[in-house]
Amino acid sequence: MKAELLYEGKAKKVYRREGTTDQLVLSYKNDATAFNGKRKASFEGKGRLNNEISSRIFTFLHKQGIETHFIERLNETEQIVRQTEIVPLEVVVRNLATGSITQRLGIEEKTLFAPPIVELFYKDDDLNDPLINDQHALFLSSVTEQELREIKEEALKINGVLTDLFQSINLRLVDFKLEFGRLACGSIVLSDEISPDTCRLWDLNTEEKMDKDVFRQGTGDLLEVYNVILQRLEDIS
Amino acid sequence: MKAELLYEGKAKKVYRREGTTDQLVLSYKNDATAFNGKRKASFEGKGRLNNEISSRIFTFLHKQGIETHFIERLNETEQIVRQTEIVPLEVVVRNLATGSITQRLGIEEKTLFAPPIVELFYKDDDLNDPLINDQHALFLSSVTEQELREIKEEALKINGVLTDLFQSINLRLVDFKLEFGRLACGSIVLSDEISPDTCRLWDLNTEEKMDKDVFRQGTGDLLEVYNVILQRLEDIS
Repeated sequence: MKAELLYEGKAKKVYRREGTTDQLVLSYKNDATAFNGKRKASFEGKGRLNNEISSRIFTFLHKQGIETHFIERLNETEQIVRQTEIVPLEVVVRNLATGSITQRLGIEEKTLFAPPIVELFYKDDDLNDPLINDQHALFLSSVTEQELREIKEEALKINGVLTDLFQSINLRLVDFKLEFGRLACGSIVLSDEISPDTCRLWDLNTEEKMDKDVFRQGTGDLLEVYNVILQRLEDIS
Repeated sequence: MKAELLYEGKAKKVYRREGTTDQLVLSYKNDATAFNGKRKASFEGKGRLNNEISSRIFTFLHKQGIETHFIERLNETEQIVRQTEIVPLEVVVRNLATGSITQRLGIEEKTLFAPPIVELFYKDDDLNDPLINDQHALFLSSVTEQELREIKEEALKINGVLTDLFQSINLRLVDFKLEFGRLACGSIVLSDEISPDTCRLWDLNTEEKMDKDVFRQGTGDLLEVYNVILQRLEDIS
């Protein structure tokens, strides 16, 4: 199924899909990293969990009319996606203040953002993925003003859809990071993954953290909480 | 002329103007600071130079139809302004890449920004005046979406007017910082100062730095270059 390795990231390997020119195989690794790669560990089974979780979430988004790069889950740790040219932006949507924004802007933990705040970060490890504004994004990437507006609108739409999804499995979507890519035809679609690596999810009742923060903060068992997320998603499928 | 001291900043003292309820006296100090106050020095005569330069520039802006808080120069180191409620944003306009943006975003020194880039920073010394986006600005300040749009448009208009002014005295306006304030009637006008403390000005021919960078970088005599700016402004009045 896989031909050459095109790229290896922190959490995934990306292969050309054999016999195609416009499809990729994403292979989820067991590695977890935090603080821009400064903390690293490996968790046997994490790759499978994120592949399963992300596949289910992208399938759900398709049913809600959101276009994405996702085609189908291939096996336990791999999925097939349409090839896109990466838009070098991380699009973060925040419903509740936690993490970096509280320190950066002196905003109290758990402050509600209504409307949600959308932040753009420039994907560049050497620069530590700096926060940027819209004009920086236009200067640093190939997106047009219109496309940037659409990306932010899409991010907010995805936020609405996912907030409801997670609420139905007793989780609060606190914030999350999206990435987008450009298809050969020119349109920009949601790409990368959506998983507890890229979302902050708090149990609705206990406010227990059910995401990569348990690894970042060393406060829980990553595999255990990722397993709970997958089980709850399976229960509603 | 002066009643109580209302506020002392790094470069100015602000007094209530005696006998008024809506006017202030700005008293320019001789202090220079850089790197958020980490480098400090005093230059005998700097207060006079910046008061003179800023008074001339604000008077010029009035002639170009730009509304500001400035009323008149009072004496060598002081000026009278309308009292405004500070909008806690620093609005930076960049025509050419230099300084923090080159490191922050990996942009090559002297890259031309066409259109100019407008950046917002949240005025908070404890947070080191962080870069923010429009949504942060709406969340952290009292400005409305419409007002924020107007502030950015006004900053670009001022950039055009000042670029021409400085070009006429053989200087290139590389970038500069503006602050705005809200008058009692509710409108937002340009406030603070415009001087070599707040602008990067390069000699058009030699690219010599004619602004506070000579102090930041220890590459020249602050009083000498500020004097040149004032002389050139006097020559065209």
